[in-house]
Amino acid sequence: MSESTDRDARHKARMQRKKALIDEKIAQAQDEYGLLLVHSGNGKGKSSSAFGMVARALGHGIKVGVVQFIKGAASTGEETFFRRFPEEVSYHVMGEGFTWETQDRQRDIAKAQQAWAVAQRLLSDESVGLVVLDELNIALKHGYLELDAVLADIEARPLLQHVVVTGRGALPGMIEAADTVTDMSLVKHAFKSGVKAQKGIEF
Amino acid sequence: MSESTDRDARHKARMQRKKALIDEKIAQAQDEYGLLLVHSGNGKGKSSSAFGMVARALGHGIKVGVVQFIKGAASTGEETFFRRFPEEVSYHVMGEGFTWETQDRQRDIAKAQQAWAVAQRLLSDESVGLVVLDELNIALKHGYLELDAVLADIEARPLLQHVVVTGRGALPGMIEAADTVTDMSLVKHAFKSGVKAQKGIEF
Repeated sequence: MSESTDRDARHKARMQRKKALIDEKIAQAQDEYGLLLVHSGNGKGKSSSAFGMVARALGHGIKVGVVQFIKGAASTGEETFFRRFPEEVSYHVMGEGFTWETQDRQRDIAKAQQAWAVAQRLLSDESVGLVVLDELNIALKHGYLELDAVLADIEARPLLQHVVVTGRGALPGMIEAADTVTDMSLVKHAFKSGVKAQKGIEF
Repeated sequence: MSESTDRDARHKARMQRKKALIDEKIAQAQDEYGLLLVHSGNGKGKSSSAFGMVARALGHGIKVGVVQFIKGAASTGEETFFRRFPEEVSYHVMGEGFTWETQDRQRDIAKAQQAWAVAQRLLSDESVGLVVLDELNIALKHGYLELDAVLADIEARPLLQHVVVTGRGALPGMIEAADTVTDMSLVKHAFKSGVKAQKGIEF
């Protein structure tokens, strides 16, 4: 047997075992209900990944609601793009920029509470299949919103509605409540090595 | 001074220091050029995050090219959605499904090479501002494509073109070549605890 044929044969055997395992896992997973996903960590991709899920949901004809809790001073590319579909995406930018830009804690609290009122409306709307609560973790970490009240509203949402919460520093209670938690960690970042933040990539 | 006023004052001072640091960093970051971003790790969000960047780019009027190297047997929500914009997104699904579905190494190699030919075309097109090479890391890890040749083509792209490479198991040479590397790691996954893979979330 040649080395290449041998490698192909071993590959095939390994892939057959893998397929069997995965098929079994899929068969076991029976329940279908709305998930709470949390994207945290100090790396890139927490919000981008939520917006990729928005695109995915729209591809399946699922209506989407977005509330941005902190970013908002700058109009981002995502916002410009998804506002093209007002029938499909209910898009709300509530924050006034990052907290180190505003430097006013009481105003940040008021803004976060206004944003939560919008989130509550989306979280009680059965026609919305995916709700993105972008940078909610930041608002919770700074104490602008009460975790228990937030989790109670999320818990009470329609059965099939998915929720994605983003932002670094997810509180332990948020991680506890989540179905899926992904930690986006920074391995290497061009920005740190002196490259300008760039349109289409960073914002 | 009340406890609340005191907390607000400390918050303001901390945020002022943070703002100064961040402003300085932005001023230092001078160069503007196309970045190579790598999304790896065993968590969710590698592809979603790339597709969120597609939305962001489109919001800025930047043209996008997408090549999916492995997924492709199933039509995903992202594909359905972004195919709505044929003038703005050049979308190519080249793989025949995951390797444990096909179980044919020679066919996987041929498919990966066809996909790379499409990628090469996008990587030499100055009108394309963002190229997503989805699951390229998988094709490289299995040896379906040669890393050196792939990196040479990426290196030779137009100066302002951004490239995002996704897939678990990024090779060390890919990480070395990247400007930004994010590791998406799994903290908790509903699928593992017996929840069915769900439309709009998993695919």
